[in-house]
Amino acid sequence: MSQVKYDVAGIGNALVDVIANADDAFLNSENIQKGGMTLIDAERADTLYGRMGEAIESSGGSCANTIAGLASLGGKGAFFGKVKEDQLGQVFIHDITTLGVAFPASVATNGAPTGRCLVLVTPDAQRSMSTYLGAAQNLTPNDIDEEVIRASAITYMEGYLWDQPGAKDAFLKAAKVARDAGRIVSLTLSDSFCVDRFRPEFQKLVKDEVDLLFANEAEILSLYEVDSFEEALERVRKECKFAALTRSELGAVVVANGDVHKVAAEKVSKVVDTTGAGDLFAAGFLYGLARGYKPDHCGRLGVMAAAEIISHYGPRPMISLKELAAERGL
Amino acid sequence: MSQVKYDVAGIGNALVDVIANADDAFLNSENIQKGGMTLIDAERADTLYGRMGEAIESSGGSCANTIAGLASLGGKGAFFGKVKEDQLGQVFIHDITTLGVAFPASVATNGAPTGRCLVLVTPDAQRSMSTYLGAAQNLTPNDIDEEVIRASAITYMEGYLWDQPGAKDAFLKAAKVARDAGRIVSLTLSDSFCVDRFRPEFQKLVKDEVDLLFANEAEILSLYEVDSFEEALERVRKECKFAALTRSELGAVVVANGDVHKVAAEKVSKVVDTTGAGDLFAAGFLYGLARGYKPDHCGRLGVMAAAEIISHYGPRPMISLKELAAERGL
Repeated sequence: MSQVKYDVAGIGNALVDVIANADDAFLNSENIQKGGMTLIDAERADTLYGRMGEAIESSGGSCANTIAGLASLGGKGAFFGKVKEDQLGQVFIHDITTLGVAFPASVATNGAPTGRCLVLVTPDAQRSMSTYLGAAQNLTPNDIDEEVIRASAITYMEGYLWDQPGAKDAFLKAAKVARDAGRIVSLTLSDSFCVDRFRPEFQKLVKDEVDLLFANEAEILSLYEVDSFEEALERVRKECKFAALTRSELGAVVVANGDVHKVAAEKVSKVVDTTGAGDLFAAGFLYGLARGYKPDHCGRLGVMAAAEIISHYGPRPMISLKELAAERGL
Repeated sequence: MSQVKYDVAGIGNALVDVIANADDAFLNSENIQKGGMTLIDAERADTLYGRMGEAIESSGGSCANTIAGLASLGGKGAFFGKVKEDQLGQVFIHDITTLGVAFPASVATNGAPTGRCLVLVTPDAQRSMSTYLGAAQNLTPNDIDEEVIRASAITYMEGYLWDQPGAKDAFLKAAKVARDAGRIVSLTLSDSFCVDRFRPEFQKLVKDEVDLLFANEAEILSLYEVDSFEEALERVRKECKFAALTRSELGAVVVANGDVHKVAAEKVSKVVDTTGAGDLFAAGFLYGLARGYKPDHCGRLGVMAAAEIISHYGPRPMISLKELAAERGL
C-alpha cells in the first residue's frame, strides 16, 4: 500500500460562483427552482447574468469548496476538475492552489470557457443555482492521476459529475483505483434533483461502492423514495459503513458501523447565504475521518465549518477554520 | 442649458477588486504601504496575486463605487472608465449597468486586460491596495461624451486619474464642459500619496475649478501641508464652495458656502473591511446634493452609506441603500 500523502482527493465540477441577491419574484419570473441546481447552456447563462443584479465572484463548485474547507482546517487535499486558461480559470486555480491544494488536471487551452454557477440568494438566505458547466464538462478519466488517488486516504466525489459521461467515467475510474488501494470512497448526493435524474444508479453506487455517503434530508428521502427521515436512516444504517446526513438547523446525524450519533447545529447570529453549507459540513467531517477522529468529533467539525460559511456571502471560508477549531477545542 | 438627465457623471479608473485577507507580516514582506494605494505593473500584479490568499472578486474602482452607491440610493448616474472586452471587463460592465448606470465609454478590443486592484484586508479592517491599471490607463478625452456631462447635475472625478496623461486630459475636458454648462464640478483627492504626487496641480484645481471637494483627513492635511485639521478646514472654507471632509470614526465635516456642519459617524457593530468607505460617503453626499438636500442631510446619507459598506467585504452595497435611507427617514 502506497503512503498516504493526501487526506482527501476530490473530483468535481470546477466552477466560479457569481453571487447576487434576488427576490422570490425574480426566481419565479425566471422559472428558477428555489434551493435547487439547474444546468443551463451558454446562451441562457448570458441572458440570466444580464438580468441579475450586481454580483461578487468567488471560486466555487461543490467538491472544490469541500477541498478548500479541508485545506482551511489544515488538511492536505487534491482536487480534480477542468477549467480553461481564461481569467476565471486563473481565479479558480489561484484560489485552490493558494490553499496548498494540489491541482493535477490539465487546463483546457481551447473550447468552452471556465464554467460558472449563477447563485441567486433570496432574503431567507436560501441559494438557487443555475450552472453553466463550460470547460468543467470536459473532465475525462485521463485527467485522473491514479497515483494521487492511491495516495489519498479518502476519495470524495460529487453526484453532479453524473450529468456528463466523461466526468462519470472519471468518477468510476477513481472509485475503482481507490477501492483497489484499500482507500475510502466517498460520495455526496449533491442535490435532490440530481438524485431524481440518476436514482437507480445512485442506489447501486451507494450500496456497492461507497464507504462514506453525504446527503441532506431531501436527498436521502429522494434516494430511497421514502417519506420519513427515520425510514431513510434505517436504509443508510444497513447499506453504508459511514454516512453523514445533514438536516439544516436540526444538525446532523452520523452513521458509523451501524451506530447513530446526533450532532446539534451551531447557532448563527445572522444567516446570510447558505451557499456551501453542505460542502463545508463535508469538509469538516472528511478532515476528521481522515485524521482518525471519532464520529461525533467529525460531525462537530462539519457543523462548525458549515456555521462559518452561512454567516457570509460565498462558499469558501473567510477565516482560518483551523484556528476556529482550535478555539473550540476541536 | 440642457435638461438634467443624470444626478452625477463619474470619471474614474474601471477596476475589478480582488480581495483577500492578509496579516501585517505579509504587507511588510511585500513592502506594501498599509492603507495606501500603490500602482503596480502586470508582472508585479501576477507575482503578488500568486502570493495572496484565496480571494473574492467584486467590481471596484473608487469613482465607480461611488456611482454604484448613488444608483443604489435611487440616483441616476453615468460612469466613464475603460475596460477590455475580457471576462473581468464583462463583470465590470454587468455590475455597473445592472444598476441602471449609463456606461458610455468604448470597450477596448485589444491591448492591456481589464485593470484590477489587489486589496489586502488586515485584521484591523484596514485595506491596502496594489493597482494594476491595465485597460483603465487608456481612457482619453475621446471617451468623454460631452452631452452626458452637460446633462449631469454634478461631474465627479477621482484624483487617481492624474496618474495617466490621457485620463488627466479626459478629466480636464470634462471639467471644462461641466463648468461651461453651469454644472457642479467635484473632485475626490483619492489618497494622500496621490496628493503627494500632484500637490501643486491639485491645489490649483481645488482653488480654481472644483466646486465640491471630497477628502479624508490625511488627504486634506497633505494638500495644504498643514498639521492640524482646523488649519486645513480654514483653508477649505476660503477656497471651496462645498466640501465634505471625512474623519473615520469622528464622522464628517461639511463645508457649504462658508458654513461648517458636523455629522457624527454611525456605529457599526463589526467593521469587516473599510474598502469603499470614502467612495460610499461620496455617493450619499452627491445624491443628496444633486437632489437639493441640506448639507447635513447630505452628510448623513454619506455616513449611512459608508457604514453599510464597512460592515462587509467589498466596495459595493450588498443591500438597497434607497431602502436603508427610507428606514432611517433620510
